[in-house]
Amino acid sequence: MYFLNDSLISLQYVLDNECKNAQKVILLDENTKKHCLPILLENVNGLKDALMIEIESGEKNKNEKNLIKIISALVNVSADKGTVFLSLGGGVITDLGGLAAALYYRGIRHIEIPTTLLGMVDASIGGKNGINFGELKNQIGTITRPFFTCFYLPFLRTLGKRQISNGAAEMIKLALVADKAMWDKMKTKSPIEIGQDEGLITRCIELKQRICDEDFNDVNKRRILNFGHNFGHAIEAFALKHSFDILHGESIARGMYYETILSRNILGFDTKEYSEILAYIQRYYAIKRTVDQYLQLLDYLRHDKKTFAGDQKFTLLQEIGYAKTNITVSEGEIMKLLLILQSH
Amino acid sequence: MYFLNDSLISLQYVLDNECKNAQKVILLDENTKKHCLPILLENVNGLKDALMIEIESGEKNKNEKNLIKIISALVNVSADKGTVFLSLGGGVITDLGGLAAALYYRGIRHIEIPTTLLGMVDASIGGKNGINFGELKNQIGTITRPFFTCFYLPFLRTLGKRQISNGAAEMIKLALVADKAMWDKMKTKSPIEIGQDEGLITRCIELKQRICDEDFNDVNKRRILNFGHNFGHAIEAFALKHSFDILHGESIARGMYYETILSRNILGFDTKEYSEILAYIQRYYAIKRTVDQYLQLLDYLRHDKKTFAGDQKFTLLQEIGYAKTNITVSEGEIMKLLLILQSH
Repeated sequence: MYFLNDSLISLQYVLDNECKNAQKVILLDENTKKHCLPILLENVNGLKDALMIEIESGEKNKNEKNLIKIISALVNVSADKGTVFLSLGGGVITDLGGLAAALYYRGIRHIEIPTTLLGMVDASIGGKNGINFGELKNQIGTITRPFFTCFYLPFLRTLGKRQISNGAAEMIKLALVADKAMWDKMKTKSPIEIGQDEGLITRCIELKQRICDEDFNDVNKRRILNFGHNFGHAIEAFALKHSFDILHGESIARGMYYETILSRNILGFDTKEYSEILAYIQRYYAIKRTVDQYLQLLDYLRHDKKTFAGDQKFTLLQEIGYAKTNITVSEGEIMKLLLILQSH
Repeated sequence: MYFLNDSLISLQYVLDNECKNAQKVILLDENTKKHCLPILLENVNGLKDALMIEIESGEKNKNEKNLIKIISALVNVSADKGTVFLSLGGGVITDLGGLAAALYYRGIRHIEIPTTLLGMVDASIGGKNGINFGELKNQIGTITRPFFTCFYLPFLRTLGKRQISNGAAEMIKLALVADKAMWDKMKTKSPIEIGQDEGLITRCIELKQRICDEDFNDVNKRRILNFGHNFGHAIEAFALKHSFDILHGESIARGMYYETILSRNILGFDTKEYSEILAYIQRYYAIKRTVDQYLQLLDYLRHDKKTFAGDQKFTLLQEIGYAKTNITVSEGEIMKLLLILQSH
């Protein structure tokens, strides 16, 4: 359940009518505590007695240590089956909070309040939660429907340009795999312009929601959303290990660059559109990597969740707005891609 | 999916037809490695290349440390989305293995092979998995349908009397909440006789399966299975903390004793049947506790998963074969019960 208009009023309504007398616990980080919590408490009466659990922001904190910390905190405040757990933050917070809520007592009610663009258009939709394990991205998690998701667009005003560009990458992905008309609009704009366009944001939220509803357990249609994510996750895992500063959307943009090349090599994706996409990503999400680093990505690719019985399964573009899922890509094809990248 | 007849042949069929070329990983403990693995490998061809993950047996090992150990082992053998994970053991193994399989890559295929009576008639049916957290029973877990469950009754021949009596307690519970005719048969037999009766075992597996299928997410009908489990879990948690040697079924038998008294006090449960049940449990699962220990149970009761918004929700007997769920029991009623117990 989610509402785009008057979303804080809807949240108040849900708390008043479906969570009366329930204990409320809010998970947040130092940023959302400072910038978003005051707005939330000012507008939503039902949260004034909520208990807070704070964790440090950043992808490196999406780990089992913090998961255990959150569950311990729930035990300490005697959270029970009726407790309502709210996650106020970006993808790290909603992924961690979603998993903690899915596991505690085998599941308590989870309300997601994404505060970043990436959180709104991607992480908080479709019920996927998770933590990284070692260097491996989202290695542990579940797919669990949240009780309610609150999309409050004014939170986006607290974001810097890099955060907006980060979220815009997932919006671009949605257009490429499922909505050609949207890509035609987007390609004349910069990621910052895309990420500040409320019409496009709303369209992306609705589109991702619809795709996830059609295939909630991620066995089929939903996998079109994996475009850019095999290489994207490998890059993120590599960055996590070497403490490189790269955000999820930035990795996915680069992953889309690589996988657009695979789409041409394997599915014969149109040359003109191929060049358009590569030029766009090169312009706004510049790719700079040495060959050495490319080769290291291979190992991370093998450990990605999209490997099935040893085969690496990709989602590639047949044409813009239409992606094909479960395409086996051989290591030979991947080596060929890495050679092409050397010349770019 | 499960088969009672020729279950190892069915397992072989599933592995051959639906898991061809998949990596197989078997979770076991030192007991099932010694007593059950040879039988399994001898009868099921498809497992001869399976990798093994061994953990130490015992309720105290059903914790987050072993969960992380299992997941690390899966990473180390490059388990992927196609890997088939088999749990060979009692409730501790199937609960731990079920959770690891539910979380790894957001879910890989899980085949349960219960080897104890309790595992067959209870733990391996209905998809509940979990670990204890601190002293709290099954505090963390999910409800996830296994890919296949293999009930191979000859494994029961490896069990000692105490293990059989342990499993029989959950069979008795099933009869009390859902099948009066079965209780009428059972009450003339000892728990050992019940636990060695293949007809009764088969009936219990089918009955629990049917109840769980009707309400897989445990929001309604399925909660009839909670009879005896509020006090039962409190006793187990208490025992875990103080290293008392008590098994799950033994705790549940005692829990049923307490909750049969609550059933009379609160729902006016029939006096003759009440006396019959109490006498049966007293005879075969003797209750010996000091008042001091009773009082300590209160705290564990409050932390049980069946507490909702501060209220402790019980499943109690209206009559034999018909249980009522979600009954709020006040702390006053619980204190009254403890006073009654003093005089027993």
